[in-house]
Amino acid sequence: MADTTPSGSSERGQTLRADLVPAPAVRRLSLYLRELESFLRHDRQTISSKQLGEALGLTDAQVRKDLAYFGQFGHPGIGYRVDELVTRIKCILGTDRTWNVLLVGAGNLGHALLSYRGFSKKGFQIVAVFDNDPEKVGQPIGPDERLIIQPFSQVRQAVREKDIQVAIISVPAEVAQSVADELVSAGIKGILNFAPASLTVPESVPIASVDLAVHLEQLAFRISANQLAAQ
Amino acid sequence: MADTTPSGSSERGQTLRADLVPAPAVRRLSLYLRELESFLRHDRQTISSKQLGEALGLTDAQVRKDLAYFGQFGHPGIGYRVDELVTRIKCILGTDRTWNVLLVGAGNLGHALLSYRGFSKKGFQIVAVFDNDPEKVGQPIGPDERLIIQPFSQVRQAVREKDIQVAIISVPAEVAQSVADELVSAGIKGILNFAPASLTVPESVPIASVDLAVHLEQLAFRISANQLAAQ
Repeated sequence: MADTTPSGSSERGQTLRADLVPAPAVRRLSLYLRELESFLRHDRQTISSKQLGEALGLTDAQVRKDLAYFGQFGHPGIGYRVDELVTRIKCILGTDRTWNVLLVGAGNLGHALLSYRGFSKKGFQIVAVFDNDPEKVGQPIGPDERLIIQPFSQVRQAVREKDIQVAIISVPAEVAQSVADELVSAGIKGILNFAPASLTVPESVPIASVDLAVHLEQLAFRISANQLAAQ
Repeated sequence: MADTTPSGSSERGQTLRADLVPAPAVRRLSLYLRELESFLRHDRQTISSKQLGEALGLTDAQVRKDLAYFGQFGHPGIGYRVDELVTRIKCILGTDRTWNVLLVGAGNLGHALLSYRGFSKKGFQIVAVFDNDPEKVGQPIGPDERLIIQPFSQVRQAVREKDIQVAIISVPAEVAQSVADELVSAGIKGILNFAPASLTVPESVPIASVDLAVHLEQLAFRISANQLAAQ
């Protein structure tokens, strides 16, 4: 019986053949998690696939199909136990563990990111900060000034000594590719890119890009278009 | 001759039937602009559609097709004049003007966003900040403490008096929808949403969502998957 297996016992091994799971299904896992956490906040204990889908405009069949990629969930006649499904989705996504993270680029955006608590909520712990500006190197940084800005030349040593898996890039566009190259070479396993540049990295290093400039331009375009259409 | 028409004379009127332009083409405009700005920094004066495409992994035919949605560009035998194309794309995107912006939610992320200079680079000027926390209302905020946090009940008046078109939402997920509803009702023309929630707004109000939590989860999933595959 699936519900008697120890929590998280097998789903990772079974499911984390990421290449076999369509990217939209993985993306919807994040949305399911968000809905479930909201249900949890409202003390809801069980939920059906229909109810979970409804909140997201999806059919119950879609919900069941998506979750089936990752193992067996739910209990006949009960539905999903909300807290159990939250725990298992976090385990599948890998946000139930702590990721050691470094940040490159202690400029304006870097400072903002360091003060953003959302990272640690998902297990992303910033443990080192790099910048090549001589005026910044050696300065304390972070909400509680717990980190000291290091020169980027020390990045390899830090990755090794602090077991860092993830890098956040918040440097100017012009140097972003060379920073990414060095991070990959230093053994970084994944990159979160905030630099306004399209970076090329090996397929084995996943990269997520948050391109605020593009978001702003696309929004401005659509507002402008509406205004002209209304004239 | 197209190159003798005054700059920006007609492309907006012709082109900003946004519904006729495929979204990916509008998105690529942002990427073209970024490449062109990089060429401009390197004092490059002219560029061919082939060269512009190459930097982005696109064919010259794709570049020409995308730009053709928005009018006539380029000069026979010369290609595109870089500075001219930058100016015209900014005009098409609507980032050549100033947008008055309000921010709702002066929490951790709100503070970070207020100190992010990328907004003003795209013409997004934050002119008002709202929060309902009584301990925050009345406090100065922003890089130069130029703004005073107002209660959200004053949002309608501010939108009207300061001619605010755009709203940035950085409130907790639970209240994001009701904030969005009130903003739409107050006459906001576009929304940039940083709250981890899927918001429903009328089709006439474009919304761009920057979902850091989802980015982090998807990255964690792909790194976890790689690690398991390597075991």
